[in-house]
Amino acid sequence: METAAVASSGAGRRIMVAVDEGEESLHALNWCLANVVSPAGGDTLVLVHARRPRPVYAAMDSAGYMMTSDLLASVERHANAVSAAVVDEAKRVCADHPHVKVETMVESGDPRDVICDAAAKMAADLLVMGSHGYGFIQRAFLGSVSNHCAQNCKCPVLIVKRPKE
Amino acid sequence: METAAVASSGAGRRIMVAVDEGEESLHALNWCLANVVSPAGGDTLVLVHARRPRPVYAAMDSAGYMMTSDLLASVERHANAVSAAVVDEAKRVCADHPHVKVETMVESGDPRDVICDAAAKMAADLLVMGSHGYGFIQRAFLGSVSNHCAQNCKCPVLIVKRPKE
Repeated sequence: METAAVASSGAGRRIMVAVDEGEESLHALNWCLANVVSPAGGDTLVLVHARRPRPVYAAMDSAGYMMTSDLLASVERHANAVSAAVVDEAKRVCADHPHVKVETMVESGDPRDVICDAAAKMAADLLVMGSHGYGFIQRAFLGSVSNHCAQNCKCPVLIVKRPKE
Repeated sequence: METAAVASSGAGRRIMVAVDEGEESLHALNWCLANVVSPAGGDTLVLVHARRPRPVYAAMDSAGYMMTSDLLASVERHANAVSAAVVDEAKRVCADHPHVKVETMVESGDPRDVICDAAAKMAADLLVMGSHGYGFIQRAFLGSVSNHCAQNCKCPVLIVKRPKE
């Protein structure tokens, strides 16, 4: 049967969850913990986060002057702090589910590539993500990250939307 | 918490699986049974199938003559037979999982509308589908059914690809 290669519930699956600074990705993580992860234990949750690469225009300020190395370092520090906060919050959510082993993976780059590459590299059995991560502007120009992953990742992709209040 | 409205594993979730004549949708169904449906029972699986509406050109044959009512009836019979076979096969797969309650739902129409409407009407907690159902031609003109559902259904959408041999 086609499912022979897929571990059955609780038999040590690697479930990857893409986390970003939007609350939708936290909702996706919660949904996955409540509905997909085996309550009997044995699954590994891999939290993957794409840290934005330093944008090109960051090398100059708005007046066209080169930014000082202090300012560049500050931009970099801010990006790192955001990444750390995102991953810490996701780990905190997972801490309520002690039967799940948690790993984290942070890479710089376009989230579409980071997430698909991570899913392939870690041989994920499932990729879970929100539908609208990574901002309106990026989505308008580059298309939805979740659409890209649903089309390009080899593993099953679960797209979870933010519930309407 | 956002997950409060979502039943936890095994607590009577309604999981909708879109089935068509492609083997990818059978794989999606199998993956769902092995990885999402609670082994403890309590979940309901709703098999939804979109029967193709009779195409407009079916009212005339290639020479432009009106088709006889016999021929129209035969086209209709064939479509019904295909639908019945798809649903029967999916039910047969589910029969190996007696802890799951199975319902079926067959509607005529564009699969994108049929599936999204069904998920809303049945208040599905999750929609599961293959990524490439409903044929190359339709996809080229209308876009992927799974992309449409991932963007437009309110519930989480799990897209399962056919494994590469």
